[in-house]
Amino acid sequence: MAEHQVTFTTLEDSPGGQPAPPTTVSVPTGSLLTEAAKLAGVEVNQPCGAQGRCGRCTLQITEGDIRRRSTVRLSPSDIAEGYALACQSIIEGDVSVIVPPQEKIERLLTTERTVAEVVVPATYEPQQDQTIQKVTLHLTPPDMSDQTDDWSRLKTALRKQAGIQDALPPLRLLRNIGPQLREADWHVTAVLDTTTWDCPDCPPRIIDILPASVAETKPLLGAAIDIGTTTVTLWLVNLDSGKVLSQAAEYNGQISRGEDVISRIIFTGKDGGAEELKTLVLETVNTLLERACKRVKADPPISPQDVVKATIAGNSTMLHLLLGIPAESIRLMPFITSVNQVPTYTAGEVGLNIHPDGSVDCLPGVASYVGADISAGVLSSGVDETDQITLFIDVGTNGEIVLGSREWLVTCACSAGPAFEGAGVRDGMRATKGAIEEMWINSDTYEPSFRVIGGGKPRGICGSGLISLLAETFITGIVDKGGNINTALDIPRVRKGEHGWEYVVVWAEESSHGQDITFTHVDVDNLLRAKAAIYAGFTVLAESVGIPLDLVEQVLIGGSFGKYINVEKAIEIGLLPDLPWDRYEFLGNTSVHGAYLTLLDRNARQQIRDIASRMTYIELSADNTFYNAFMSALFLPHTDLSRFPSVESILTKKKT
Amino acid sequence: MAEHQVTFTTLEDSPGGQPAPPTTVSVPTGSLLTEAAKLAGVEVNQPCGAQGRCGRCTLQITEGDIRRRSTVRLSPSDIAEGYALACQSIIEGDVSVIVPPQEKIERLLTTERTVAEVVVPATYEPQQDQTIQKVTLHLTPPDMSDQTDDWSRLKTALRKQAGIQDALPPLRLLRNIGPQLREADWHVTAVLDTTTWDCPDCPPRIIDILPASVAETKPLLGAAIDIGTTTVTLWLVNLDSGKVLSQAAEYNGQISRGEDVISRIIFTGKDGGAEELKTLVLETVNTLLERACKRVKADPPISPQDVVKATIAGNSTMLHLLLGIPAESIRLMPFITSVNQVPTYTAGEVGLNIHPDGSVDCLPGVASYVGADISAGVLSSGVDETDQITLFIDVGTNGEIVLGSREWLVTCACSAGPAFEGAGVRDGMRATKGAIEEMWINSDTYEPSFRVIGGGKPRGICGSGLISLLAETFITGIVDKGGNINTALDIPRVRKGEHGWEYVVVWAEESSHGQDITFTHVDVDNLLRAKAAIYAGFTVLAESVGIPLDLVEQVLIGGSFGKYINVEKAIEIGLLPDLPWDRYEFLGNTSVHGAYLTLLDRNARQQIRDIASRMTYIELSADNTFYNAFMSALFLPHTDLSRFPSVESILTKKKT
Repeated sequence: MAEHQVTFTTLEDSPGGQPAPPTTVSVPTGSLLTEAAKLAGVEVNQPCGAQGRCGRCTLQITEGDIRRRSTVRLSPSDIAEGYALACQSIIEGDVSVIVPPQEKIERLLTTERTVAEVVVPATYEPQQDQTIQKVTLHLTPPDMSDQTDDWSRLKTALRKQAGIQDALPPLRLLRNIGPQLREADWHVTAVLDTTTWDCPDCPPRIIDILPASVAETKPLLGAAIDIGTTTVTLWLVNLDSGKVLSQAAEYNGQISRGEDVISRIIFTGKDGGAEELKTLVLETVNTLLERACKRVKADPPISPQDVVKATIAGNSTMLHLLLGIPAESIRLMPFITSVNQVPTYTAGEVGLNIHPDGSVDCLPGVASYVGADISAGVLSSGVDETDQITLFIDVGTNGEIVLGSREWLVTCACSAGPAFEGAGVRDGMRATKGAIEEMWINSDTYEPSFRVIGGGKPRGICGSGLISLLAETFITGIVDKGGNINTALDIPRVRKGEHGWEYVVVWAEESSHGQDITFTHVDVDNLLRAKAAIYAGFTVLAESVGIPLDLVEQVLIGGSFGKYINVEKAIEIGLLPDLPWDRYEFLGNTSVHGAYLTLLDRNARQQIRDIASRMTYIELSADNTFYNAFMSALFLPHTDLSRFPSVESILTKKKT
Repeated sequence: MAEHQVTFTTLEDSPGGQPAPPTTVSVPTGSLLTEAAKLAGVEVNQPCGAQGRCGRCTLQITEGDIRRRSTVRLSPSDIAEGYALACQSIIEGDVSVIVPPQEKIERLLTTERTVAEVVVPATYEPQQDQTIQKVTLHLTPPDMSDQTDDWSRLKTALRKQAGIQDALPPLRLLRNIGPQLREADWHVTAVLDTTTWDCPDCPPRIIDILPASVAETKPLLGAAIDIGTTTVTLWLVNLDSGKVLSQAAEYNGQISRGEDVISRIIFTGKDGGAEELKTLVLETVNTLLERACKRVKADPPISPQDVVKATIAGNSTMLHLLLGIPAESIRLMPFITSVNQVPTYTAGEVGLNIHPDGSVDCLPGVASYVGADISAGVLSSGVDETDQITLFIDVGTNGEIVLGSREWLVTCACSAGPAFEGAGVRDGMRATKGAIEEMWINSDTYEPSFRVIGGGKPRGICGSGLISLLAETFITGIVDKGGNINTALDIPRVRKGEHGWEYVVVWAEESSHGQDITFTHVDVDNLLRAKAAIYAGFTVLAESVGIPLDLVEQVLIGGSFGKYINVEKAIEIGLLPDLPWDRYEFLGNTSVHGAYLTLLDRNARQQIRDIASRMTYIELSADNTFYNAFMSALFLPHTDLSRFPSVESILTKKKT
């Protein structure tokens, strides 16, 4: 078989990106570019498991040609510039390849397009609020007249110089204490976790001791982490100031083993499946830790080992999988978690690559399908402290809903399915570069116009775009209230396609991949079911406490998806209740923000446990109430149009 | 090179010893029997590191012949029966080999000749005294109307049914709780450690949950362990009854890396040395756990994983090495340990192969050279509770001495060297089969007679035999008070040998190895230094508290070596003070017995910490007092004969 020369040149992760000396390897025809890279010792990220979906393995071909099996996540201009997915590129001749700096690949992609602006709580007083404390101690060196052991010496100094009684040393500390005290010349800073979650009255635990001179140059670091089913987000935090030093996000490495929590749980049934999922998500988090630390320009540089505390939010399945706890019972009736309120463990026990004796707090959840991400959302959005009757929604693969105020909180989860994340929809995609995120249809010509993430030609439609599309097709009469395509319309964009009737959103020549982007009857059905599930969730929740939906004084929408929803259109399709728009607020990733607040403040830490305990969980599948509400909501906007007066008025105007 | 067939037949570890089908392998001339065994997949114990010293690899040759490089630990009758050390046997022809059951090899050897008879403390009340408790709980299974998570369900049952508040679950428990509760049909027994050493007020920690039906059939098990520099001893204990179910002892696997603590510490300076020593001693302990469990005939059989608590005694160096704590500072001025009072850790953290969440209590020590073995000895012997002024001695490579009563305790350590363990003496050996353990010399003919451990011809002289020998040669005038061999004696047994003047104890034809067993001038010197160090220790300790030695009301001697000392002769050589013999008592292995008491009783657990804290450590190298006392004691029995009136009277009688 013919052999080809593949030459890799790696650009450094630094401004300007200076190249390292190139490496050349020889591979047979038909090899993947990833295989050649591995041979050349070039590290290529493949969080999606070489499935050609995440785009992280993007390399740049500068000479020669490769055959592209897939170009997902690459724009035509990217492709023109030679960018290719290494896991989807087949070598058929000699090629020269540039390995771009990781930073560059990330800018190219759009996972991290939302860098949150985080405000440090004005009241943050690290001495008061932070559970992690550091104290600097001067120890008297031993001599023949004072042969006290090292640990007793440290313990005495903690008691006498810092008033700390009976601190507990991890075994690792005792393994290091002798050399550490001597290297520090008996002048050390002890870092302690003063209180753990399930044992507030236990003595403080020493995480580590450092030479006092080193401790002075480094801030105490913490990490707030949200493990989403799709995306993992991490904020690196200076615990001394409360400031977020850097942010990083990445697809959850488990994606290639299942798109939603149910398929992940099913995957754990395979031999070694649970262990594999645990390893995959730990790798994702540990990669983000590395990246977030690298992004902070500090002297001396900081590393994940300097991080002494992490708080982790996520849905119940994500936290079970992370901790290696079987999740099977979450999926099966009667839907039981092993644990909702996880005690504090050390990073070493969990497998998190921060300081091995650093503390890991997994935030508390409520039930199998209302997890710590929702408790964190409530904490972040302040639903539990407001006087106003508030509806909090986190729309994702599952829609979790909380209704309440400082007086009471009820919650439920409805399985919306992944339609709003672009799955189960023919031309659906995630909210990344090339996705139509908002659109309008001319009610006379039925011609669409749209906005594409990152500009350029569209490749597909993301969640917010789909809501727009459904609303516009409904209002313009392309789709009727039952969700049927109006076949009577004599326009080229309405046609019978492979999957039945469809509306052509983008013609092939205007799309980035050269194919029609369409909106099919099946897509409409899937979206209808998703929105009906969420709307039925509100309804049942409101009914369960005897509150008419229109008494809701504010609607807070969490999740990074929520940030891009057009309220007007979401109401038009009956996804959100018909309330004045000014009652709506979009909060972004409330899960990681809740984790951040919990990381900083011991009061927030207590508060989120209270929130989780206070929320009354309504099980929607317990009787027929939800089913009936769901069936009524399977129309545009709803069987009972009187619930949507603003939509009724638009439709009336249109007719007249 | 010629190949030979080696056939192995393994006898089962059962009464009768039925053979398994034989395995034959082919090996080249000159191979070791251990190499052939490895090839045949036959497991052969080699705790001494294939150095031909421990005898654990003994196999029986039934056909053909091998060349024996060494026959240490085998008697002539053993050899006649075909027993051979696999690590010292060279294959030069076809052979058939029987692999005896491990039990048989042990009976053959003598490491375990002392099986202690252990009396359960009459006051033992497990409900009151034992820190490990079990409670049986009936949980209500979850359903759609009660979706409480598993852990909260267990926690609630603990609170409501057993009055246990806020128990803490190890992560492993949460990883198993779902399947465990369901398999047990919600009827479980929880095993808890109700209090740890450094956090008596912390909530109880759950070690595990078992189906209640399984827990009923098994006792709670604990292990009391003494890690000696030479020998590791383990007692397996039924925590419900307090009874010792079985005992096991084995050479410390570290022996091949250094005979005494100092050479072990030096070995840790090598690359990976500390890790290696940790692994070696853990292997020894874990082997003993297996063996002790196997020895208990129980249905269902018990395994090390059923052991939920261990207490470990040992000198400070042994405990540091076990825990992976650097021991370097113990060896170097000013002789500092990293830790004397180790907190409770889990077996998983320590690497002990009992239940991974079982508790491990390392007993507290006092100083670098007065370790937990001595605290345990004081607890075991009751020095801290008696009204009598008591001298407690543990004679080993180091002599540790405690003087005191319920009112006060002082302690010191003197480096006696390994002479009393048979090292540094030409024909010295450990107290195993073939060792002369006691002897007498006819004062007219200078002819010796002796008692040999296990009967048969002698191979060497163990510690108690050496004390006997030194005393007898001194009293009969073969050795003078300065330790010189009386060269004027015109008998064949006194002669000039390779190492100067010597006394022939056993002629070649009467020894098991066909060589003379002699007692040289150098041997005498080494023994003199050893006994002088210990006697000087008493002296300094007594002086430090202003108590003349003859006011000592009882002398308690610990260590399995001590059990075999002849008091009369030990006084004659000036090793022990000249007190009436009835003040002496021999206690055997007080270290493992102290560990046993601590394992059973939370009060003993508190008491041993109090003992360690109460003991005032006298550093002998701090000034010249010890040196002067040592120099004065370098005579037989002492420069100042008036300190030994009983010896003076013997010598006087002899002269007249």
